[in-house]
Amino acid sequence: MVGEENVSISVADLYTYGFDASIYHRSPEAVVRPRTTEEVSRIVKLARAEGIAIVARGGGTGLCGSAVPLKGGIVMDMTRMDTIKEVRVEDLYCVVEAGVINDKLNERLAPHKFFFPTSPGSGEAATIGGMVATNASGMRAVKYGATRDYVLGLEVVLSDGSIIKTGTRTIKNSSGYQLERLFVGSEGTLGIITEITLRIAPRPKTTAMVMAGFRTLEDAGKCVSKLIATPLLPSATELMDRTCIQAVNKTIDAGLPDCDALCMIEVDGEPELVEKQAEVVLKVVKEIGAISVELTHDPKVMARWTNARKSVMSSLSRFGERLVSVSLADDMAVPISKIPEAVVEFQRIAERNHVIIGTYGHAADGNLHTKMLLDPDSEEAWTNGDKAVSEIFSTVIRLGGTVTGEHGIGISKAPYLKQERPTAIATMLAIKHAMDPDNILNPGKMMEWEGGIIKMLRYPCKDLC
Amino acid sequence: MVGEENVSISVADLYTYGFDASIYHRSPEAVVRPRTTEEVSRIVKLARAEGIAIVARGGGTGLCGSAVPLKGGIVMDMTRMDTIKEVRVEDLYCVVEAGVINDKLNERLAPHKFFFPTSPGSGEAATIGGMVATNASGMRAVKYGATRDYVLGLEVVLSDGSIIKTGTRTIKNSSGYQLERLFVGSEGTLGIITEITLRIAPRPKTTAMVMAGFRTLEDAGKCVSKLIATPLLPSATELMDRTCIQAVNKTIDAGLPDCDALCMIEVDGEPELVEKQAEVVLKVVKEIGAISVELTHDPKVMARWTNARKSVMSSLSRFGERLVSVSLADDMAVPISKIPEAVVEFQRIAERNHVIIGTYGHAADGNLHTKMLLDPDSEEAWTNGDKAVSEIFSTVIRLGGTVTGEHGIGISKAPYLKQERPTAIATMLAIKHAMDPDNILNPGKMMEWEGGIIKMLRYPCKDLC
Repeated sequence: MVGEENVSISVADLYTYGFDASIYHRSPEAVVRPRTTEEVSRIVKLARAEGIAIVARGGGTGLCGSAVPLKGGIVMDMTRMDTIKEVRVEDLYCVVEAGVINDKLNERLAPHKFFFPTSPGSGEAATIGGMVATNASGMRAVKYGATRDYVLGLEVVLSDGSIIKTGTRTIKNSSGYQLERLFVGSEGTLGIITEITLRIAPRPKTTAMVMAGFRTLEDAGKCVSKLIATPLLPSATELMDRTCIQAVNKTIDAGLPDCDALCMIEVDGEPELVEKQAEVVLKVVKEIGAISVELTHDPKVMARWTNARKSVMSSLSRFGERLVSVSLADDMAVPISKIPEAVVEFQRIAERNHVIIGTYGHAADGNLHTKMLLDPDSEEAWTNGDKAVSEIFSTVIRLGGTVTGEHGIGISKAPYLKQERPTAIATMLAIKHAMDPDNILNPGKMMEWEGGIIKMLRYPCKDLC
Repeated sequence: MVGEENVSISVADLYTYGFDASIYHRSPEAVVRPRTTEEVSRIVKLARAEGIAIVARGGGTGLCGSAVPLKGGIVMDMTRMDTIKEVRVEDLYCVVEAGVINDKLNERLAPHKFFFPTSPGSGEAATIGGMVATNASGMRAVKYGATRDYVLGLEVVLSDGSIIKTGTRTIKNSSGYQLERLFVGSEGTLGIITEITLRIAPRPKTTAMVMAGFRTLEDAGKCVSKLIATPLLPSATELMDRTCIQAVNKTIDAGLPDCDALCMIEVDGEPELVEKQAEVVLKVVKEIGAISVELTHDPKVMARWTNARKSVMSSLSRFGERLVSVSLADDMAVPISKIPEAVVEFQRIAERNHVIIGTYGHAADGNLHTKMLLDPDSEEAWTNGDKAVSEIFSTVIRLGGTVTGEHGIGISKAPYLKQERPTAIATMLAIKHAMDPDNILNPGKMMEWEGGIIKMLRYPCKDLC
């Protein structure tokens, strides 16, 4: 169906395709790399007839196991479907195949002075299809929204192999159920997304950034709430706690100020407006009592700061001997004003459970990432880690938040979905059953999680030995 | 269940509640006005047990029959549920009951310098619940998006009477299926929306408006495309064709310039930015060859212009003796650059079918309204009108557009949904059957339309006699 060169059952391929960027692993029985929607349709028809599970996979950058084939079967690698089919700036949309990479799309839009604003940390590898399937976002959601806000239309292969087109190429649409928005965040469990019509936005002309160090996490949180209530929507507000600051300073010598909480606040737009916004930011951070403040308009300095922030994940892994950084509670979101309470509580949970937790994230979106540092060979460390995760998730749910702001449920958050969405889960299941009655599309994930399997999956290296 | 004073079976009430703002009518068997979600739940349980249809109704401002009880049964008036439960500007959300009116919410948000940007023409009567149920928008979608982009969470009563909470109070959320977005635009066929958590946005500080008259509709269309490709996103771009201009000038003496196409282009934001944007607009309209150009920063002048634009609908009704303006093809949307082609084609269709059509709308959103002027007592006029509608809808579908940008499918567009969405309709039906197996929620609408009934419904006055 796809040519022999695009199917593999070699052990090395199967092993590789058993991972995404999470700590989970299971090898599929086959890897298939389709080039066209018709090929996807034929493969799905065969799989349905034979009762074989199919997991669609984009860049493999997901952090919660959405692309790990929990029940084996076929992993369908969508990255060959990488054509940007249309760019219509005067109509505010573009049409891309599912395997188009986020940054490649933005390179193509840049000469037109447009961009697709959703900016995941993994933008250089993440595919638009994967971003739609997980409702990915990134640093700029508070001003620009998440992927869901940009999906105008989709082409999808359903579980019976039929190909549907949903949505429009228009900015507005009230024409029947917004299926295109239902598929957003469905993680390949309702259909396989093959083509996306995306709204695009004018690229801001200039950017400025303020780096402010605070005495306490509460102060950093107050600063964010005060900015928003001003009202001023920064294009990004990156928060790092002391653990993250120390890790980055130690490993890449970033020279970040020594403080309990650091905010990098970015504003963008027309030059005059950026100037004015930056002044408001300076005023607010000083009013809150920032202990260090720096403003820059220099793209090189901004790139250096951004790089320091992006190094948090890798830096934490090199923080201490024998300790690795794992994504267990990776992606919570709370109402913006609850950020200080959440971060302080995470630190208490860390102490209580004898684990080290670094917290960073997109503060103005209410989106927090924690990385846990633990010795992977210690059963006790994993037990403590699991307990801490459970307490962190309970905390964000209590604060009116969610266990995942931008990564998805996948495997790692499946045990907590019911806790967060006790009343909605039955409707999700009813829709899943209606649309995938034989349960061949990414089975066992999200609402379908059966328990018990998570721990087993997460020692891939040992399994291989 | 709701107190005797909140139930009615009086002929006058039943007749009144048989309308919305469309040309369709059918009286329900009962009108119920619940005050709480629990009351809604109890009513739905009873209706399910007895097999009675229920149609939820907001302000009754819909133009396509979404709130008309096509199969009789209960009309559930949601307007008593009108509490604004929370306003959390520092968290960028508010929580409202379904019956809260759009303009009332904006009055409440104004002192905080925030607003809910979706701005339907009927904002002084339209309820947020109704706006969610139809994915309403209005003049400002090109810059601010439609209702769907603002729904963070919902409370919904399902067809079995169960109450679910879906979505979050956070800006980001990748936590399971985005049911809150599926309910947007579902027109009460999947559940009854009782509470909405809405994202809110900072209100722009200033506004300016340019009114430009063009020699041809093509020129007006080129102007809009050129502005967007600049890129410049106006906050609104209202287009009127010659028929609309003449009608408004005749009936309210608006003094609009005599031309084939008029654009009112609004820009908003910080004062410096508005100044700069207005200059860009002036430059572009002149380059295109506008035959009249006027810029204003004066709120009174802007209000007068806006009033002229809002008078189009009523003015058309008074355009000629015996002619009334009817909403038949009321709400098409096309890719923005296709606006000139669409409007010119509409005029050709009008001539061919011997009807008068006025076209106006939100040009930068690609959203066009047409009103047809016809003698309601003439069978031939209705026949011609129906034929023109069918040709208009075929045109927008051919141009890659949709039969409804912001009003919904309801009754009037139900016969065309299949033509626009030939592949997606089966999935819509599968979801409907899964969520409302006894088909009690607003039955007979959208994908369920059975044909034949539309004409019968639209002579309510005669029926009453």
